[in-house]
Amino acid sequence: MTVSVGIIGATGAVGQRLIQLLAPNPEFEVEAVTASEDSAGKSYREAAKWRIDTPIPDEVAEMEVAPTDPESVPDDVQLVFSSLPSSVGEAVEPAFCEAGYVVSSNSSNARRDDDVPLTIPEINPDHLDLIEVQRDERGWDGALVKNPNCSTITMVPPLAAIDEEASLERVEVATLQAVSGAGYSGVSSMEIIDNAIPHIGKEEAKMETESRKLLGTFDGAAVHWHDVDVAASCNRIPTIDGHLENVWADTVEDVSPSAAADAMDAYPSLDLPSSPDQLIEVFEEPDRPQPRLDRTLGDGMTVSAGGIQETPSGLQFNCLAHNTLRGAAGASVLNGELLLENGYL
Amino acid sequence: MTVSVGIIGATGAVGQRLIQLLAPNPEFEVEAVTASEDSAGKSYREAAKWRIDTPIPDEVAEMEVAPTDPESVPDDVQLVFSSLPSSVGEAVEPAFCEAGYVVSSNSSNARRDDDVPLTIPEINPDHLDLIEVQRDERGWDGALVKNPNCSTITMVPPLAAIDEEASLERVEVATLQAVSGAGYSGVSSMEIIDNAIPHIGKEEAKMETESRKLLGTFDGAAVHWHDVDVAASCNRIPTIDGHLENVWADTVEDVSPSAAADAMDAYPSLDLPSSPDQLIEVFEEPDRPQPRLDRTLGDGMTVSAGGIQETPSGLQFNCLAHNTLRGAAGASVLNGELLLENGYL
Amino acid sequence: MTVSVGIIGATGAVGQRLIQLLAPNPEFEVEAVTASEDSAGKSYREAAKWRIDTPIPDEVAEMEVAPTDPESVPDDVQLVFSSLPSSVGEAVEPAFCEAGYVVSSNSSNARRDDDVPLTIPEINPDHLDLIEVQRDERGWDGALVKNPNCSTITMVPPLAAIDEEASLERVEVATLQAVSGAGYSGVSSMEIIDNAIPHIGKEEAKMETESRKLLGTFDGAAVHWHDVDVAASCNRIPTIDGHLENVWADTVEDVSPSAAADAMDAYPSLDLPSSPDQLIEVFEEPDRPQPRLDRTLGDGMTVSAGGIQETPSGLQFNCLAHNTLRGAAGASVLNGELLLENGYL
Amino acid sequence: MTVSVGIIGATGAVGQRLIQLLAPNPEFEVEAVTASEDSAGKSYREAAKWRIDTPIPDEVAEMEVAPTDPESVPDDVQLVFSSLPSSVGEAVEPAFCEAGYVVSSNSSNARRDDDVPLTIPEINPDHLDLIEVQRDERGWDGALVKNPNCSTITMVPPLAAIDEEASLERVEVATLQAVSGAGYSGVSSMEIIDNAIPHIGKEEAKMETESRKLLGTFDGAAVHWHDVDVAASCNRIPTIDGHLENVWADTVEDVSPSAAADAMDAYPSLDLPSSPDQLIEVFEEPDRPQPRLDRTLGDGMTVSAGGIQETPSGLQFNCLAHNTLRGAAGASVLNGELLLENGYL
Repeated sequence: MTVSVGIIGATGAVGQRLIQLLAPNPEFEVEAVTASEDSAGKSYREAAKWRIDTPIPDEVAEMEVAPTDPESVPDDVQLVFSSLPSSVGEAVEPAFCEAGYVVSSNSSNARRDDDVPLTIPEINPDHLDLIEVQRDERGWDGALVKNPNCSTITMVPPLAAIDEEASLERVEVATLQAVSGAGYSGVSSMEIIDNAIPHIGKEEAKMETESRKLLGTFDGAAVHWHDVDVAASCNRIPTIDGHLENVWADTVEDVSPSAAADAMDAYPSLDLPSSPDQLIEVFEEPDRPQPRLDRTLGDGMTVSAGGIQETPSGLQFNCLAHNTLRGAAGASVLNGELLLENGYL
Repeated sequence: MTVSVGIIGATGAVGQRLIQLLAPNPEFEVEAVTASEDSAGKSYREAAKWRIDTPIPDEVAEMEVAPTDPESVPDDVQLVFSSLPSSVGEAVEPAFCEAGYVVSSNSSNARRDDDVPLTIPEINPDHLDLIEVQRDERGWDGALVKNPNCSTITMVPPLAAIDEEASLERVEVATLQAVSGAGYSGVSSMEIIDNAIPHIGKEEAKMETESRKLLGTFDGAAVHWHDVDVAASCNRIPTIDGHLENVWADTVEDVSPSAAADAMDAYPSLDLPSSPDQLIEVFEEPDRPQPRLDRTLGDGMTVSAGGIQETPSGLQFNCLAHNTLRGAAGASVLNGELLLENGYL
Repeated sequence: MTVSVGIIGATGAVGQRLIQLLAPNPEFEVEAVTASEDSAGKSYREAAKWRIDTPIPDEVAEMEVAPTDPESVPDDVQLVFSSLPSSVGEAVEPAFCEAGYVVSSNSSNARRDDDVPLTIPEINPDHLDLIEVQRDERGWDGALVKNPNCSTITMVPPLAAIDEEASLERVEVATLQAVSGAGYSGVSSMEIIDNAIPHIGKEEAKMETESRKLLGTFDGAAVHWHDVDVAASCNRIPTIDGHLENVWADTVEDVSPSAAADAMDAYPSLDLPSSPDQLIEVFEEPDRPQPRLDRTLGDGMTVSAGGIQETPSGLQFNCLAHNTLRGAAGASVLNGELLLENGYL
Repeated sequence: MTVSVGIIGATGAVGQRLIQLLAPNPEFEVEAVTASEDSAGKSYREAAKWRIDTPIPDEVAEMEVAPTDPESVPDDVQLVFSSLPSSVGEAVEPAFCEAGYVVSSNSSNARRDDDVPLTIPEINPDHLDLIEVQRDERGWDGALVKNPNCSTITMVPPLAAIDEEASLERVEVATLQAVSGAGYSGVSSMEIIDNAIPHIGKEEAKMETESRKLLGTFDGAAVHWHDVDVAASCNRIPTIDGHLENVWADTVEDVSPSAAADAMDAYPSLDLPSSPDQLIEVFEEPDRPQPRLDRTLGDGMTVSAGGIQETPSGLQFNCLAHNTLRGAAGASVLNGELLLENGYL
């Protein structure tokens, strides 16, 4: 028995990854794909300029693309994955929730809203029950669940491991982000070949706030954000996939690099279909992880870390995740699996 | 009247930049070029695999490459620029100093030695007089002067401006470094295309120590290092030239982003031939500076900065310099010009 | 005494290069810049996202961008450089000609029209007099002159040298083209990093026809195209600037590689301000020319060639030109200079 | 029952691919890995700087690296895969053959020798019986079999399909080759970022001769080379894996693009474990195949083609293959499988 799902915003970079990931997923079956008016009515093959190095799954290739509104999605669809631009998601996602659909969304709108769960299943699965509060307040039959931004997802698992060990006090993070994070036409080649861009619009604020919500505690009524200070500096570099990050973490208690490595290595994964066997892979080689070599670990769902060392004021380490798998499409699918596991579907 | 100079280690990436820069220099005239035994006896054109996009200066192209020892360099050469591998420099540079040559070196050996001046002329020109101490101790007629490592040079000018304004307490820096910093064969293409490498051997330690020596005070007898804590994380990315850096700076006193920008903008340059009109160019656009667009500002000798903003614990900014011009060959030439100005030639 | 000129379509990649080139030009002075309605009314600095590594010339930065129509351009402007998209150029350029302006255009529309001169000044300057035919037929006071497509300009000078020596019979050409040829947003980074694209829309047909018109003969009434067979295969690769091409040329008469090299080397340049001293630079090193090392030869106006060798059926060689300088903006400026020299301004 | 195999030259780029491919191979089991003296005695993990994005197979990681001579390889090894530098292969491979080993080699030495089979199993499997002649002449118990150079393998399957249909007369080919073809340190990043190099030492001659031997006929005593004229022009570009080629083919008889496409599509594959289901994938989209999107088709063993069109003198098309899989390691493994199938092991 599989759950029927839909994908809204199915033709973009994250939408294509969702289709790639959902094809072999044992729990979900894609029944509807939607996109903007331009694409509606075309076959998915025609509408999407497929740019992944595995072929379009047969069952989706000839599916007709529907317009992105609740009426166009069959009623037996229970779960909708959303990878809409945030300005579109802001308007459309609530409409789906109101119409009774559960929405697992990668879009950046509403992530910081008080009654919207922002979850990484291995890190803060209990936050999912914020749905009860949300339904009370909004009167929805459906629900809206968010995964965080790709660069936040990359650093939060190792930070959570350190936080449990020694309590985080202050974090600085510099990112080296791949171009796929901006979508297929987000970064032009003339901007980035032989170059790097030290600015990604709104990304720093996302990292600084979403990380605190994810590391916060849920008391049944509200999420109390972690009070760690986070300062992020975000850079785009000429890589296709995989966000690499340099992190400095000051902690309340002392923690050695080897204790931090052990805490990361031992941080438990979950038993969901898309959870990797090893959540955090810790490298001893000082020059790892590297995007091209390590982004596909655990089918792109493992976060890797390395270069853990002491600094005058705490710890320093590097981490990496595949930004469109663990950091976007895979994150949404995983949230979908948690929703199913926890009885919300 | 020009000063006759030699270049030891003249065929590598920095050596080629030295030759490019010295050709039009009004104060210096290249009279000798040396390299390893393999190259000795060949014409420079033959020995160097020239890889700069301007032609080899005519006066050097047909010069015969000498072996790298003091006997092979004409006596009328007063100043020798060194861009040797540090293991070679360690042995060879003292021999040149003992033989009476003044050596302006880009090699990393001896940079932290107590009696070796490490200078960026616009930042700490007074440290040059450490030569007196050096000559006393070592009994040299010549002298050894060092410029810092390329990634250190990039951040020190803006840090010096902030330090004067508000006293630095703590610095974290993440670098996005170009491949040219590793020399012509330092980084293979298979390592770096579609990738980034979060480790550059010994680079972090260089940034953490050299910056403190540069920002230190010289009392006529010794340099007292600045007590700022510096933690560096160094990355190689797929750019040809130009190191971009993300810096966090905590200060003793408060300083606003606009005051910091003003201090950087007003930081004085020098009147040496290779000093740029503007030492630090401050960008208001949040996505600048960028390596490909801004590395050649001030003929590659201007350091640029941007993205200055407040963080929970101080300031954050980005900076950029051309790593083989301001960060290496140009740094050595500038030290040579300071040596001449201050009467050491 | 300088000629007042305007630039229509001034904010794109070629428009920016036109502004960069015209600033120091001794014969022309920019008096008007136009762009689409979105940009009209803004200062040039505001309207153009300037992406060249030299600053915007001061005299243009604060100029107000006008809409692209003849009424918006001052009457004392005699010459208009056009780098409009071809669909726009098709409508707008004739309107300018009718209004009395001489238009030197880089846009691809009308290049093959019987009464429109398509010229590379050093190759077929006599074709310019097709203007007389054009004026007769169209009743224009102005005139329309075209430069060829960037990949055509790259191969025609060496082919012209061979043609004079031994008469071309058949040409195959494979191109490795830089991303700047497609404009600032023409090629997305996700399409081209770690990749190559074996197709550039309409480029092959342009190379196959424009080259034959350029190498043709003008008898005072019409251009008789050269009857050489040309087959082109066009590829986009991850370089910023500089088109590299592999060419096979079969000739009617025998010609040795060294005779071909001599013919290229001796092919005369012109005395126009933007003509390079050496039109074709011939390399002996088999691995040259290379885009990054050789694209700026002769301030980007020299075409370079190398790897000349015999094949079972003729000659084979490589050639290179800077696609936005010699291949676009510089080509238009050079045509402008030829128009002035020949009394059309 | 599996055949015990060894890998000589196991630590380089092709050696690593051999280990990756052989781990899941149903017919072969790796029992010995050799490398140069520097590596001998170390574990494979230690000796090889593993640079593939899947982990080192466990069974090989801790294997001790032996020196590259027949005495160091266990006697029960029947087949040895060689990816030595050709200068080393020239001396070492005959020693292994003499000692009784069958050698399937990717090294370029001896490929054109009269008594050495050069085979692509799907194209000219019958040439393998040249082993009988070889053993007669050289008195070996073992045998030496070669696969062609990676850029030759890419174009020969589609050319073979056209040849069967219409008889090849003349071929021109321009290559856009990935950096992995030169090994891990073959192409430095400073050479190739934002660049292309129109020369790869000896590659053109390999393509021009090996293709004619492969397309030749074996009469039981000797291979009679095809008399097609081949002219190749080889370029290195900044891609990691996947050689893309532009081919012009003149034929004796007429053949339409669609007939050529059909012939390619219908060209049979083999039933060997490493043969792909579809030998040649023909794309209708004019911008395919592309290295990053299509190199892993058929687990990297499918050759793809596209852009087939008429030219004034014949056909033109593009083709692509993964250079270290189909073009090197996979080619050697496939030859090993053919050797087993045909009773030579």
